Amino acid sequence: MTVTSKPASHSFTIMNELVFPNDTNPLHNLMGGRLLHLMDIAAAISAQKHSNHIVVTASVDNVSFKHPVKLGDVITIHAKVTRAFSTSMEIRLEVFSENIQPNSRIKSNEAYYTFVALDDNGNPARVPELIPETDEEKQLYETALSRRELRLILANKMRPENATQLKALFFPEA
Amino acid sequence: MTVTSKPASHSFTIMNELVFPNDTNPLHNLMGGRLLHLMDIAAAISAQKHSNHIVVTASVDNVSFKHPVKLGDVITIHAKVTRAFSTSMEIRLEVFSENIQPNSRIKSNEAYYTFVALDDNGNPARVPELIPETDEEKQLYETALSRRELRLILANKMRPENATQLKALFFPEA
Amino acid sequence: MTVTSKPASHSFTIMNELVFPNDTNPLHNLMGGRLLHLMDIAAAISAQKHSNHIVVTASVDNVSFKHPVKLGDVITIHAKVTRAFSTSMEIRLEVFSENIQPNSRIKSNEAYYTFVALDDNGNPARVPELIPETDEEKQLYETALSRRELRLILANKMRPENATQLKALFFPEA
Amino acid sequence: MTVTSKPASHSFTIMNELVFPNDTNPLHNLMGGRLLHLMDIAAAISAQKHSNHIVVTASVDNVSFKHPVKLGDVITIHAKVTRAFSTSMEIRLEVFSENIQPNSRIKSNEAYYTFVALDDNGNPARVPELIPETDEEKQLYETALSRRELRLILANKMRPENATQLKALFFPEA
Amino acid sequence: MTVTSKPASHSFTIMNELVFPNDTNPLHNLMGGRLLHLMDIAAAISAQKHSNHIVVTASVDNVSFKHPVKLGDVITIHAKVTRAFSTSMEIRLEVFSENIQPNSRIKSNEAYYTFVALDDNGNPARVPELIPETDEEKQLYETALSRRELRLILANKMRPENATQLKALFFPEA
Amino acid sequence: MTVTSKPASHSFTIMNELVFPNDTNPLHNLMGGRLLHLMDIAAAISAQKHSNHIVVTASVDNVSFKHPVKLGDVITIHAKVTRAFSTSMEIRLEVFSENIQPNSRIKSNEAYYTFVALDDNGNPARVPELIPETDEEKQLYETALSRRELRLILANKMRPENATQLKALFFPEA
Repeated sequence: MTVTSKPASHSFTIMNELVFPNDTNPLHNLMGGRLLHLMDIAAAISAQKHSNHIVVTASVDNVSFKHPVKLGDVITIHAKVTRAFSTSMEIRLEVFSENIQPNSRIKSNEAYYTFVALDDNGNPARVPELIPETDEEKQLYETALSRRELRLILANKMRPENATQLKALFFPEA
Repeated sequence: MTVTSKPASHSFTIMNELVFPNDTNPLHNLMGGRLLHLMDIAAAISAQKHSNHIVVTASVDNVSFKHPVKLGDVITIHAKVTRAFSTSMEIRLEVFSENIQPNSRIKSNEAYYTFVALDDNGNPARVPELIPETDEEKQLYETALSRRELRLILANKMRPENATQLKALFFPEA
Repeated sequence: MTVTSKPASHSFTIMNELVFPNDTNPLHNLMGGRLLHLMDIAAAISAQKHSNHIVVTASVDNVSFKHPVKLGDVITIHAKVTRAFSTSMEIRLEVFSENIQPNSRIKSNEAYYTFVALDDNGNPARVPELIPETDEEKQLYETALSRRELRLILANKMRPENATQLKALFFPEA
Repeated sequence: MTVTSKPASHSFTIMNELVFPNDTNPLHNLMGGRLLHLMDIAAAISAQKHSNHIVVTASVDNVSFKHPVKLGDVITIHAKVTRAFSTSMEIRLEVFSENIQPNSRIKSNEAYYTFVALDDNGNPARVPELIPETDEEKQLYETALSRRELRLILANKMRPENATQLKALFFPEA
Repeated sequence: MTVTSKPASHSFTIMNELVFPNDTNPLHNLMGGRLLHLMDIAAAISAQKHSNHIVVTASVDNVSFKHPVKLGDVITIHAKVTRAFSTSMEIRLEVFSENIQPNSRIKSNEAYYTFVALDDNGNPARVPELIPETDEEKQLYETALSRRELRLILANKMRPENATQLKALFFPEA
Repeated sequence: MTVTSKPASHSFTIMNELVFPNDTNPLHNLMGGRLLHLMDIAAAISAQKHSNHIVVTASVDNVSFKHPVKLGDVITIHAKVTRAFSTSMEIRLEVFSENIQPNSRIKSNEAYYTFVALDDNGNPARVPELIPETDEEKQLYETALSRRELRLILANKMRPENATQLKALFFPEA
């Protein structure tokens, strides 16, 4: 019997990493692309835990880099599935960084990745539904729809005027 | 005398890469995060050529992955600055992939990265203005404003109702 | 004011990793040495959290590898400081591995690493005492002494006949 | 129908790379062997574009390293096939390096690599003839013969007295 | 005809490595886990030479790190099989490090790894007996038994009171 | 007192390496450029042992690749200085490869690299003279001159008609 739904918490994944020399630019700052690479691995593990399938990255939403992360800092990445669609999943990533000083931990980034589950032939595979349990999980579950509309518009797969969730969010007065 | 403007073509950067085993998942597909890492390096080189400064990634816009890229394929990344703001630059990236077969090259991805130029003390540094010359460069220069508004909204730095360019683009009827 | 003691839970560190091709031998099994490398990074992060100092590996206790971990599997490493001595810490590592199948997670390894904290001049630095809170933490805190005796004997820094803790453990009848 | 000839320009390949910490020695100079590795990848992509076959390195001609390339510099590699023999190709590589300063680009190296095309069974495969079009391409096409003679002599596959092209080049008076 | 015994010297393997930036922590010291990784590769080559089989790490004995190894230093690893059991081998590793100064070479570590030989189906395979020839080889051959007892005790596969070799070694007076 | 001469044997360096997935092309053959990279590291260690200085690659002579080396094979590189000039050294490299089968070892490549010794300011530094002792060392010491002439001609630093050693070697009848 196939599992047809799983709680969000089941997919929660923590990844701690040290920033090594080859991850940095000549100012000894972690390169943004390297962080996106690590986030992709954390998101893949989370999506794989939810789906029990090989997963591939379908999209990455806008990510901004506000705080420099330095050589030798510790990066902590939290990944959790926010909502499952028929064969895809949205994963929320939060990135924290800290240096050797006490209480230096800050939240440096957050992002949403989407992954598609594949079967052994490389075709999309159905994934269990996601059951949000905490208030935060429920809120992320609800807002996943407007993020999805924005993704579809940006990929030219939806016309903006049909993005009712997004429109209500962005331009409530319109 | 400091250079105060440069043509877009000056920043054009081509990167060709082979997909190696460690870039792939167990289905032998290039991992999305690894591609984002390579794109970040190409964008950094392009932004550095325009600014003659060390540059750091400020944001990455939504990227979608539609076509699997396989182990052994050749990836070609084109990067070019589309518009310079006072201390930042938007870079457009186009990714092509091809295998060993003749005429197999397809466009697999496109994306916009933004970078900030830094001086030797790590403070933001002024960058030359960008001069678009071709029709495509001019069109990308113009539309850079609405992409910037979307970025600011998503980073909670602009209220949607003030995003006049974006609003006109997304919801012309509003 | 310097912190003089910290609970064990403060140092708890989780690292999730995917097994990539370059981590494996020609049978597609994770190489033991690569796992020891990942465990060392997890232990260093844990020891750094406890000590707020740069830390360096002082020793690794006997590790055995009973279960093959395969390409594409997920490795989860748990690290936590068990006891602090004046300038060093013992860290316990537990390694779990799982594949794509549901409920496939097994405990594959456990090990004890010791680290020394260093100040900015590279000299050993005092570390806070460790406060064990749970029953398991208390038990690991107590048994740390006999593990330490074994380490000192193996490093020719203690004569076996003086290892009272260890002797009692190994040869209760003696 | 198989393509029987291709212009040289079809194989032109550009690779831009940043010099990362692990590419350098303790003086922060790019290691020569790492550059030879990158050049090999660029040459392989160029030879693969010409032949539409998997290719393997057959030889590398003398390469000299006159200019140190530093950590953080940009390396630009240009690769183009100069001449095709029945199952092999000679590829010319030019390497440029530049730092953050305006107009700092210099040509740092050039080299000739030869590759053999392989079919799916790993046997040598016929490659299309190369058609040189520009004056430089024609000159490189002609001089490919004497470089080949030198290669054969150095590999003990030709006796020097039979190397008529090379002899005329080295010792016109003889 | 299968080889049924081989001299210890046949498995002797030397590995020289430079310490690169990505091998080091922020103090520019070689990380302990990276050294354990390199030692594992050296030990695998040695065990493979003795057994003519694919080999996998079965255990690593206590390793201590007394001397910091710095960025740019040369590491020399010596590996040799000390004793073969039916399908496993114990390998002794000695690690030396030196910097650019004359006569700077010191012995920095030593360790014992054990490997299991596998056949093409991944099952344990018989390995040739090891013939110790020099005095040192004979002494290592003899003491391999007490190291093995300690390993079995630590892996909960032997009760301490049955470890006759180890008991005689550690507590001769008992 | 500075050492003014050293025997060739002092610089002898052995490097054993396993071929890992990321070193290979899609046919699972070791890439030529990756081998050149490993040879460069072995040669650097050898030149550093002779000179007690940081060394940088000055040139690599023609290298040919006749035998495919496969994933999982063991590569053994032997490096030894053949002759020292005022601030540079020629290093001879021999590469052997073997697979899991008994007696499978073959010599796959040989090459000559030259390195320059640098002082702490990055300027060329004098190196000890090399004393050849065995017959092979003496023969390599003598023939180093004609290899050097060929290198100088190929780098456009010597006119072919002045290359008396090379001329005598290549075209004794001229």
